[in-house]
Amino acid sequence: MEKREVIFEGNEKRIFATEDPELCIIHFKDVSTAFGGIKRAVFKGKGKYTNQISAKVLERLAAAGIPNHFVKLLSEDEQLCRKIKIIPLQIIVRNRLCGTTAEMLGVESGTRIPNEVYELRYNCDSLSDPMINADHVIALGILTAEQLDYVMQLARKANKVLKKLFSSVGIELIDFKMEIGRLPSGEIIISDEISPDNSRLWDMKTGESLDKDRFRHDYGDVRAAYKDVMERLLNSTGI
Amino acid sequence: MEKREVIFEGNEKRIFATEDPELCIIHFKDVSTAFGGIKRAVFKGKGKYTNQISAKVLERLAAAGIPNHFVKLLSEDEQLCRKIKIIPLQIIVRNRLCGTTAEMLGVESGTRIPNEVYELRYNCDSLSDPMINADHVIALGILTAEQLDYVMQLARKANKVLKKLFSSVGIELIDFKMEIGRLPSGEIIISDEISPDNSRLWDMKTGESLDKDRFRHDYGDVRAAYKDVMERLLNSTGI
Repeated sequence: MEKREVIFEGNEKRIFATEDPELCIIHFKDVSTAFGGIKRAVFKGKGKYTNQISAKVLERLAAAGIPNHFVKLLSEDEQLCRKIKIIPLQIIVRNRLCGTTAEMLGVESGTRIPNEVYELRYNCDSLSDPMINADHVIALGILTAEQLDYVMQLARKANKVLKKLFSSVGIELIDFKMEIGRLPSGEIIISDEISPDNSRLWDMKTGESLDKDRFRHDYGDVRAAYKDVMERLLNSTGI
Repeated sequence: MEKREVIFEGNEKRIFATEDPELCIIHFKDVSTAFGGIKRAVFKGKGKYTNQISAKVLERLAAAGIPNHFVKLLSEDEQLCRKIKIIPLQIIVRNRLCGTTAEMLGVESGTRIPNEVYELRYNCDSLSDPMINADHVIALGILTAEQLDYVMQLARKANKVLKKLFSSVGIELIDFKMEIGRLPSGEIIISDEISPDNSRLWDMKTGESLDKDRFRHDYGDVRAAYKDVMERLLNSTGI
Protein backbone atom coordinates (compact mmCIF):
# COMPACT_ATOMS: atom_id res chain seq x y z
CA MET A 1 0.00 0.00 0.00
CA GLU A 2 1.45 3.34 -1.06
CA LYS A 3 1.52 6.16 1.48
CA ARG A 4 0.43 9.38 -0.20
CA GLU A 5 -0.42 12.87 1.11
CA VAL A 6 -1.34 13.64 4.73
CA ILE A 7 -5.12 14.04 4.91
CA PHE A 8 -5.32 14.72 8.63
CA GLU A 9 -2.85 15.60 11.33
CA GLY A 10 -3.94 15.44 14.96
CA ASN A 11 -2.04 15.68 18.23
CA GLU A 12 -1.28 11.99 18.41
CA LYS A 13 -1.91 10.70 14.87
CA ARG A 14 -1.17 11.47 11.25
CA ILE A 15 -3.43 10.05 8.55
CA PHE A 16 -2.26 9.45 4.98
CA ALA A 17 -4.19 8.82 1.77
CA THR A 18 -3.35 5.70 -0.24
CA GLU A 19 -3.90 4.73 -3.86
CA ASP A 20 -7.22 3.20 -2.76
CA PRO A 21 -9.74 6.03 -2.14
CA GLU A 22 -11.50 3.89 0.47
CA LEU A 23 -8.40 3.20 2.58
CA CYS A 24 -5.99 5.30 4.63
CA ILE A 25 -2.86 4.73 6.69
CA ILE A 26 -2.84 5.85 10.30
CA HIS A 27 0.53 6.64 11.83
CA PHE A 28 0.63 6.77 15.65
CA LYS A 29 3.01 9.42 16.95
CA ASP A 30 5.21 9.22 20.04
CA VAL A 31 3.24 12.11 21.54
CA SER A 32 0.83 12.40 24.45
CA THR A 33 -1.48 15.36 24.91
CA ALA A 34 -4.11 16.13 27.54
CA PHE A 35 -6.52 18.84 28.65
CA GLY A 36 -7.39 19.83 25.09
CA GLY A 37 -3.76 19.88 23.98
CA ILE A 38 -2.55 22.19 26.77
CA LYS A 39 -0.31 19.46 28.22
CA ARG A 40 2.02 17.76 25.73
CA ALA A 41 5.02 15.44 25.88
CA VAL A 42 6.98 13.02 23.72
CA PHE A 43 7.32 9.38 24.84
CA LYS A 44 9.66 7.41 22.61
CA GLY A 45 7.90 4.20 21.55
CA LYS A 46 4.43 5.28 22.61
CA GLY A 47 3.17 5.25 19.00
CA LYS A 48 4.01 1.59 18.51
CA TYR A 49 2.25 0.62 21.73
CA THR A 50 -1.01 2.47 20.99
CA ASN A 51 -0.96 1.26 17.38
CA GLN A 52 -0.61 -2.38 18.40
CA ILE A 53 -3.02 -2.16 21.34
CA SER A 54 -5.70 -0.56 19.19
CA ALA A 55 -5.11 -3.10 16.42
CA LYS A 56 -5.60 -5.97 18.86
CA VAL A 57 -8.73 -4.39 20.37
CA LEU A 58 -10.32 -3.57 17.02
CA GLU A 59 -9.51 -7.05 15.66
CA ARG A 60 -11.22 -8.55 18.69
CA LEU A 61 -14.28 -6.33 18.14
CA ALA A 62 -14.45 -7.29 14.45
CA ALA A 63 -14.24 -10.98 15.42
CA ALA A 64 -17.24 -10.40 17.69
CA GLY A 65 -19.19 -8.89 14.79
CA ILE A 66 -18.67 -5.25 15.76
CA PRO A 67 -17.71 -3.37 12.60
CA ASN A 68 -14.80 -0.93 12.74
CA HIS A 69 -12.31 0.82 10.52
CA PHE A 70 -9.26 -1.40 11.18
CA VAL A 71 -7.98 -3.43 8.21
CA LYS A 72 -4.46 -4.59 9.14
CA LEU A 73 -1.20 -3.67 10.80
CA LEU A 74 1.41 -2.29 8.37
CA SER A 75 4.28 -1.73 10.77
CA GLU A 76 4.95 -1.20 14.47
CA ASP A 77 3.43 2.26 14.39
CA GLU A 78 1.14 2.21 11.34
CA GLN A 79 -2.10 0.52 10.44
CA LEU A 80 -4.29 0.39 7.37
CA CYS A 81 -7.88 1.52 7.97
CA ARG A 82 -11.06 2.14 6.06
CA LYS A 83 -11.75 5.83 5.38
CA ILE A 84 -14.96 7.09 6.89
CA LYS A 85 -17.05 10.23 7.00
CA ILE A 86 -16.92 11.41 10.60
CA ILE A 87 -20.17 11.47 12.59
CA PRO A 88 -19.73 14.20 15.22
CA LEU A 89 -20.71 12.03 18.17
CA GLN A 90 -18.58 10.40 20.86
CA ILE A 91 -19.93 7.58 22.97
CA ILE A 92 -18.28 7.24 26.35
CA VAL A 93 -18.85 3.95 28.12
CA ARG A 94 -18.29 3.87 31.87
CA ASN A 95 -18.08 0.84 34.15
CA ARG A 96 -17.01 3.06 37.06
CA LEU A 97 -17.30 6.83 37.52
CA CYS A 98 -13.99 8.65 37.00
CA GLY A 99 -12.62 11.91 35.70
CA THR A 100 -14.95 14.66 34.55
CA THR A 101 -18.07 12.60 35.24
CA ALA A 102 -17.07 11.89 38.84
CA GLU A 103 -16.39 15.62 39.30
CA MET A 104 -19.68 16.58 37.65
CA LEU A 105 -21.65 14.24 39.94
CA GLY A 106 -19.69 15.03 43.09
CA VAL A 107 -18.55 11.45 43.68
CA GLU A 108 -15.09 10.01 44.27
CA SER A 109 -13.14 9.01 41.17
CA GLY A 110 -13.41 5.24 40.78
CA THR A 111 -16.90 4.98 42.28
CA ARG A 112 -18.46 1.62 41.47
CA ILE A 113 -21.95 1.76 39.95
CA PRO A 114 -24.80 -0.73 39.68
CA ASN A 115 -25.33 -0.03 35.95
CA GLU A 116 -23.12 0.84 32.99
CA VAL A 117 -23.23 4.54 32.15
CA TYR A 118 -23.27 5.62 28.50
CA GLU A 119 -22.60 9.27 27.72
CA LEU A 120 -22.89 11.09 24.44
CA ARG A 121 -20.76 14.07 23.47
CA TYR A 122 -21.33 16.33 20.51
CA ASN A 123 -17.96 16.40 18.76
CA CYS A 124 -17.57 20.13 18.18
CA ASP A 125 -14.35 21.92 19.17
CA SER A 126 -15.89 25.40 19.16
CA LEU A 127 -18.55 24.22 21.64
CA SER A 128 -16.01 22.22 23.72
CA ASP A 129 -17.63 18.84 22.93
CA PRO A 130 -20.69 19.28 25.18
CA MET A 131 -22.32 16.27 26.82
CA ILE A 132 -25.73 15.82 25.21
CA ASN A 133 -28.50 13.25 25.35
CA ALA A 134 -30.28 11.05 22.83
CA ASP A 135 -32.99 13.66 22.17
CA HIS A 136 -30.35 16.27 21.29
CA VAL A 137 -28.69 13.84 18.85
CA ILE A 138 -31.97 13.44 17.00
CA ALA A 139 -32.94 17.13 17.21
CA LEU A 140 -29.58 18.13 15.68
CA GLY A 141 -29.98 15.50 12.94
CA ILE A 142 -26.68 13.81 13.87
CA LEU A 143 -28.37 10.40 13.73
CA THR A 144 -31.94 9.16 13.41
CA ALA A 145 -33.48 7.41 16.42
CA GLU A 146 -32.96 4.06 14.68
CA GLN A 147 -29.31 4.78 13.89
CA LEU A 148 -28.68 5.89 17.47
CA ASP A 149 -30.27 2.68 18.77
CA TYR A 150 -27.91 0.74 16.54
CA VAL A 151 -24.88 2.70 17.75
CA MET A 152 -25.88 2.15 21.38
CA GLN A 153 -26.17 -1.58 20.68
CA LEU A 154 -22.64 -1.50 19.22
CA ALA A 155 -21.40 0.30 22.34
CA ARG A 156 -23.05 -2.17 24.73
CA LYS A 157 -21.71 -5.12 22.79
CA ALA A 158 -18.23 -3.56 22.55
CA ASN A 159 -18.18 -2.99 26.30
CA LYS A 160 -19.08 -6.61 26.96
CA VAL A 161 -16.38 -7.90 24.59
CA LEU A 162 -13.67 -5.50 25.84
CA LYS A 163 -14.37 -6.05 29.55
CA LYS A 164 -13.79 -9.73 28.88
CA LEU A 165 -10.68 -9.16 26.73
CA PHE A 166 -9.02 -6.91 29.31
CA SER A 167 -10.00 -8.92 32.37
CA SER A 168 -8.44 -11.99 30.71
CA VAL A 169 -5.10 -10.15 30.96
CA GLY A 170 -5.65 -8.84 34.49
CA ILE A 171 -6.94 -5.39 33.54
CA GLU A 172 -10.22 -3.79 34.58
CA LEU A 173 -11.84 -1.72 31.82
CA ILE A 174 -13.02 1.36 33.72
CA ASP A 175 -14.20 3.39 30.73
CA PHE A 176 -13.52 4.02 27.05
CA LYS A 177 -14.47 6.42 24.29
CA MET A 178 -15.89 5.27 20.98
CA GLU A 179 -16.02 7.43 17.88
CA ILE A 180 -18.12 6.53 14.88
CA GLY A 181 -18.19 7.20 11.18
CA ARG A 182 -19.95 6.28 7.96
CA LEU A 183 -18.56 4.15 5.15
CA PRO A 184 -19.40 5.17 1.56
CA SER A 185 -22.14 2.48 1.72
CA GLY A 186 -23.77 4.39 4.60
CA GLU A 187 -22.88 1.70 7.12
CA ILE A 188 -22.01 3.11 10.55
CA ILE A 189 -18.83 1.70 12.11
CA ILE A 190 -16.47 2.39 15.00
CA SER A 191 -13.88 4.69 13.52
CA ASP A 192 -11.17 5.58 15.98
CA GLU A 193 -8.54 3.84 18.02
CA ILE A 194 -9.42 2.24 21.35
CA SER A 195 -6.24 2.41 23.42
CA PRO A 196 -4.92 3.67 26.77
CA ASP A 197 -5.17 7.14 25.17
CA ASN A 198 -8.97 7.14 25.30
CA SER A 199 -9.80 4.56 27.95
CA ARG A 200 -9.07 3.92 31.60
CA LEU A 201 -7.39 0.58 32.27
CA TRP A 202 -6.60 -0.43 35.85
CA ASP A 203 -4.41 -3.32 36.89
CA MET A 204 -6.77 -5.72 38.64
CA LYS A 205 -4.28 -6.61 41.36
CA THR A 206 -2.76 -3.23 42.20
CA GLY A 207 -5.49 -0.84 41.04
CA GLU A 208 -2.77 1.09 39.20
CA SER A 209 -3.68 3.16 36.11
CA LEU A 210 -2.21 1.78 32.88
CA ASP A 211 -3.53 4.59 30.72
CA LYS A 212 -3.39 8.29 29.88
CA ASP A 213 -4.17 9.22 33.51
CA ARG A 214 -0.49 8.42 34.15
CA PHE A 215 0.33 11.33 31.85
CA ARG A 216 -2.58 13.60 32.88
CA HIS A 217 -1.80 13.35 36.58
CA ASP A 218 1.99 12.84 36.41
CA TYR A 219 1.98 9.35 37.90
CA GLY A 220 5.12 8.62 35.84
CA ASP A 221 6.11 5.59 33.73
CA VAL A 222 3.67 6.35 30.93
CA ARG A 223 5.74 4.41 28.42
CA ALA A 224 6.11 1.36 30.66
CA ALA A 225 2.36 1.24 31.35
CA TYR A 226 1.44 1.33 27.65
CA LYS A 227 4.11 -1.28 26.91
CA ASP A 228 2.71 -3.48 29.68
CA VAL A 229 -0.82 -3.29 28.22
CA MET A 230 0.50 -4.12 24.74
CA GLU A 231 2.53 -7.07 25.93
CA ARG A 232 -0.31 -8.50 27.98
CA LEU A 233 -2.62 -8.33 24.96
CA LEU A 234 -0.05 -9.72 22.49
CA ASN A 235 0.89 -12.58 24.82
CA SER A 236 -2.69 -13.47 25.70
CA THR A 237 -4.21 -16.65 24.37
CA GLY A 238 -7.73 -17.92 24.03
CA ILE A 239 -9.49 -14.57 23.79
CA MET B 1 -56.17 25.91 57.21
CA GLU B 2 -53.86 27.47 59.78
CA LYS B 3 -50.59 28.95 58.57
CA ARG B 4 -47.78 27.91 60.92
CA GLU B 5 -43.98 28.23 60.78
CA VAL B 6 -42.00 28.84 57.60
CA ILE B 7 -40.49 25.52 56.53
CA PHE B 8 -38.76 26.81 53.41
CA GLU B 9 -37.92 30.20 52.02
CA GLY B 10 -36.70 30.50 48.44
CA ASN B 11 -36.11 33.47 46.18
CA GLU B 12 -39.67 33.58 44.88
CA LYS B 13 -41.66 31.48 47.35
CA ARG B 14 -42.20 30.99 51.06
CA ILE B 15 -43.61 27.67 52.31
CA PHE B 16 -45.51 27.34 55.59
CA ALA B 17 -46.41 24.30 57.65
CA THR B 18 -50.08 23.78 58.54
CA GLU B 19 -51.83 21.80 61.27
CA ASP B 20 -51.95 18.89 58.80
CA PRO B 21 -48.46 17.32 58.57
CA GLU B 22 -49.18 16.27 54.99
CA LEU B 23 -50.10 19.75 53.73
CA CYS B 24 -48.31 23.06 53.35
CA ILE B 25 -49.17 26.56 52.20
CA ILE B 26 -47.12 28.11 49.39
CA HIS B 27 -46.95 31.89 49.27
CA PHE B 28 -45.78 33.38 45.96
CA LYS B 29 -43.67 36.50 46.44
CA ASP B 30 -43.63 39.60 44.26
CA VAL B 31 -39.99 38.88 43.43
CA SER B 32 -38.19 37.78 40.27
CA THR B 33 -34.69 36.38 40.31
CA ALA B 34 -32.49 35.06 37.51
CA PHE B 35 -28.98 33.73 36.83
CA GLY B 36 -28.85 31.84 40.11
CA GLY B 37 -30.19 34.76 42.13
CA ILE B 38 -27.62 37.28 40.85
CA LYS B 39 -30.35 39.38 39.20
CA ARG B 40 -33.30 40.29 41.42
CA ALA B 41 -36.25 42.67 41.27
CA VAL B 42 -39.65 43.25 42.87
CA PHE B 43 -42.73 43.32 40.65
CA LYS B 44 -45.86 44.32 42.57
CA GLY B 45 -48.56 41.75 41.85
CA LYS B 46 -46.28 39.12 40.32
CA GLY B 47 -46.97 36.67 43.17
CA LYS B 48 -50.68 36.59 42.50
CA TYR B 49 -50.16 35.99 38.78
CA THR B 50 -47.71 33.08 39.20
CA ASN B 51 -49.87 31.59 41.97
CA GLN B 52 -53.00 31.62 39.85
CA ILE B 53 -51.29 30.53 36.63
CA SER B 54 -49.64 27.59 38.38
CA ALA B 55 -52.94 26.66 40.07
CA LYS B 56 -54.72 26.59 36.72
CA VAL B 57 -51.93 24.57 35.07
CA LEU B 58 -51.67 22.02 37.90
CA GLU B 59 -55.48 21.65 38.07
CA ARG B 60 -55.49 20.94 34.35
CA LEU B 61 -52.73 18.33 34.77
CA ALA B 62 -54.60 16.66 37.64
CA ALA B 63 -57.75 16.55 35.51
CA ALA B 64 -55.71 14.73 32.85
CA GLY B 65 -54.59 12.17 35.43
CA ILE B 66 -51.13 13.65 36.04
CA PRO B 67 -50.58 13.70 39.81
CA ASN B 68 -49.16 16.84 41.38
CA HIS B 69 -48.90 18.63 44.70
CA PHE B 70 -51.63 21.26 44.16
CA VAL B 71 -54.69 21.00 46.42
CA LYS B 72 -56.52 24.34 46.17
CA LEU B 73 -56.17 28.09 45.95
CA LEU B 74 -56.34 29.83 49.34
CA SER B 75 -55.98 33.43 48.22
CA GLU B 76 -54.66 35.48 45.33
CA ASP B 77 -51.06 34.68 46.23
CA GLU B 78 -51.32 31.48 48.27
CA GLN B 79 -52.17 27.88 47.55
CA LEU B 80 -52.53 24.73 49.62
CA CYS B 81 -50.28 21.89 48.48
CA ARG B 82 -49.31 18.39 49.51
CA LYS B 83 -45.94 18.17 51.25
CA ILE B 84 -43.43 16.01 49.46
CA LYS B 85 -39.94 14.72 49.95
CA ILE B 86 -37.86 16.33 47.21
CA ILE B 87 -36.31 14.09 44.55
CA PRO B 88 -33.19 15.93 43.33
CA LEU B 89 -34.07 15.74 39.65
CA GLN B 90 -35.41 18.36 37.26
CA ILE B 91 -37.00 17.39 33.99
CA ILE B 92 -36.83 20.08 31.32
CA VAL B 93 -39.17 19.63 28.40
CA ARG B 94 -38.34 21.50 25.19
CA ASN B 95 -40.53 21.98 22.12
CA ARG B 96 -37.99 24.41 20.65
CA LEU B 97 -34.33 24.97 21.55
CA CYS B 98 -33.78 28.14 23.59
CA GLY B 99 -31.58 29.51 26.34
CA THR B 100 -28.70 27.45 27.71
CA THR B 101 -29.48 24.48 25.45
CA ALA B 102 -29.41 26.58 22.28
CA GLU B 103 -26.06 28.03 23.43
CA MET B 104 -24.69 24.59 24.32
CA LEU B 105 -25.60 23.20 20.88
CA GLY B 106 -24.57 26.29 18.92
CA VAL B 107 -28.02 26.91 17.41
CA GLU B 108 -30.18 30.03 17.33
CA SER B 109 -32.53 30.50 20.27
CA GLY B 110 -36.00 29.44 19.17
CA THR B 111 -34.81 26.76 16.74
CA ARG B 112 -37.64 24.41 15.80
CA ILE B 113 -36.92 20.71 16.23
CA PRO B 114 -38.44 17.55 14.76
CA ASN B 115 -38.70 15.84 18.16
CA GLU B 116 -39.39 16.93 21.72
CA VAL B 117 -36.22 17.21 23.79
CA TYR B 118 -36.25 16.02 27.41
CA GLU B 119 -33.33 16.99 29.62
CA LEU B 120 -32.51 15.86 33.13
CA ARG B 121 -30.70 17.98 35.67
CA TYR B 122 -29.29 16.79 38.97
CA ASN B 123 -30.70 19.25 41.50
CA CYS B 124 -27.58 20.07 43.48
CA ASP B 125 -26.60 23.69 44.17
CA SER B 126 -22.97 22.90 45.02
CA LEU B 127 -22.56 21.16 41.62
CA SER B 128 -24.55 23.88 39.76
CA ASP B 129 -27.39 21.50 38.79
CA PRO B 130 -25.46 19.60 36.08
CA MET B 131 -27.25 18.17 33.07
CA ILE B 132 -27.13 14.39 33.37
CA ASN B 133 -28.65 11.46 31.53
CA ALA B 134 -30.85 8.51 32.46
CA ASP B 135 -27.86 6.26 33.22
CA HIS B 136 -26.49 8.81 35.71
CA VAL B 137 -29.89 9.01 37.45
CA ILE B 138 -29.82 5.26 38.03
CA ALA B 139 -26.10 5.12 38.90
CA LEU B 140 -26.62 7.81 41.56
CA GLY B 141 -29.68 5.98 42.93
CA ILE B 142 -31.92 9.03 42.43
CA LEU B 143 -34.59 6.82 40.83
CA THR B 144 -34.77 3.23 39.65
CA ALA B 145 -35.06 2.60 35.90
CA GLU B 146 -38.78 1.85 36.36
CA GLN B 147 -39.38 5.03 38.37
CA LEU B 148 -37.55 7.10 35.77
CA ASP B 149 -39.65 5.55 33.00
CA TYR B 150 -42.75 6.54 34.94
CA VAL B 151 -41.49 10.11 35.43
CA MET B 152 -40.68 10.42 31.72
CA GLN B 153 -44.19 9.23 30.91
CA LEU B 154 -45.57 11.94 33.23
CA ALA B 155 -43.40 14.53 31.47
CA ARG B 156 -44.49 13.45 27.98
CA LYS B 157 -48.14 13.45 29.01
CA ALA B 158 -47.79 16.82 30.77
CA ASN B 159 -46.21 18.34 27.66
CA LYS B 160 -49.08 17.12 25.51
CA VAL B 161 -51.71 18.49 27.89
CA LEU B 162 -49.95 21.83 28.42
CA LYS B 163 -49.20 22.46 24.75
CA LYS B 164 -52.93 22.09 24.14
CA LEU B 165 -53.90 24.24 27.14
CA PHE B 166 -51.61 27.11 26.15
CA SER B 167 -52.30 26.96 22.42
CA SER B 168 -56.04 27.23 23.20
CA VAL B 169 -55.26 30.71 24.59
CA GLY B 170 -52.90 31.73 21.79
CA ILE B 171 -49.66 30.81 23.53
CA GLU B 172 -46.92 28.48 22.26
CA LEU B 173 -45.35 26.38 25.01
CA ILE B 174 -41.65 26.53 24.11
CA ASP B 175 -40.29 24.73 27.19
CA PHE B 176 -40.96 24.12 30.88
CA LYS B 177 -39.27 22.67 33.92
CA MET B 178 -40.85 19.97 36.03
CA GLU B 179 -39.72 19.10 39.54
CA ILE B 180 -40.78 15.92 41.29
CA GLY B 181 -41.19 14.63 44.81
CA ARG B 182 -42.42 11.68 46.82
CA LEU B 183 -45.58 11.55 48.92
CA PRO B 184 -45.42 9.65 52.25
CA SER B 185 -47.02 6.74 50.35
CA GLY B 186 -43.99 6.65 48.04
CA GLU B 187 -45.99 7.88 45.06
CA ILE B 188 -43.98 10.19 42.78
CA ILE B 189 -45.76 13.39 41.78
CA ILE B 190 -44.99 16.73 40.13
CA SER B 191 -44.06 18.98 43.02
CA ASP B 192 -43.35 22.51 41.92
CA GLU B 193 -45.12 25.35 40.20
CA ILE B 194 -45.39 25.47 36.43
CA SER B 195 -45.59 29.16 35.55
CA PRO B 196 -43.85 31.81 33.41
CA ASP B 197 -41.06 31.62 36.03
CA ASN B 198 -39.92 28.19 34.84
CA SER B 199 -41.29 27.94 31.32
CA ARG B 200 -41.07 29.82 28.05
CA LEU B 201 -44.40 31.01 26.71
CA TRP B 202 -44.54 32.85 23.40
CA ASP B 203 -47.53 34.72 22.03
CA MET B 204 -48.55 32.76 18.93
CA LYS B 205 -49.33 35.90 16.91
CA THR B 206 -46.43 38.18 17.82
CA GLY B 207 -43.78 35.68 18.96
CA GLU B 208 -43.34 37.84 22.07
CA SER B 209 -42.04 36.26 25.29
CA LEU B 210 -44.65 36.18 28.05
CA ASP B 211 -42.30 34.69 30.64
CA LYS B 212 -39.20 35.18 32.76
CA ASP B 213 -37.10 35.95 29.66
CA ARG B 214 -38.74 39.41 29.84
CA PHE B 215 -36.94 39.82 33.18
CA ARG B 216 -33.73 37.95 32.26
CA HIS B 217 -33.14 39.97 29.12
CA ASP B 218 -34.76 43.28 30.15
CA TYR B 219 -37.52 43.18 27.55
CA GLY B 220 -39.69 45.19 30.02
CA ASP B 221 -43.36 44.78 31.05
CA VAL B 222 -42.73 41.64 33.12
CA ARG B 223 -45.80 42.29 35.24
CA ALA B 224 -48.09 42.90 32.23
CA ALA B 225 -46.92 39.71 30.51
CA TYR B 226 -47.60 37.53 33.58
CA LYS B 227 -51.00 39.24 34.03
CA ASP B 228 -51.80 38.58 30.38
CA VAL B 229 -51.01 34.86 30.74
CA MET B 230 -53.14 34.65 33.90
CA GLU B 231 -56.10 36.42 32.34
CA ARG B 232 -56.00 34.31 29.18
CA LEU B 233 -56.02 31.12 31.30
CA LEU B 234 -58.74 32.32 33.69
CA ASN B 235 -60.98 33.52 30.85
CA SER B 236 -60.51 30.42 28.75
CA THR B 237 -63.34 27.96 28.33
CA GLY B 238 -63.59 24.41 27.16
CA ILE B 239 -60.09 23.28 28.11
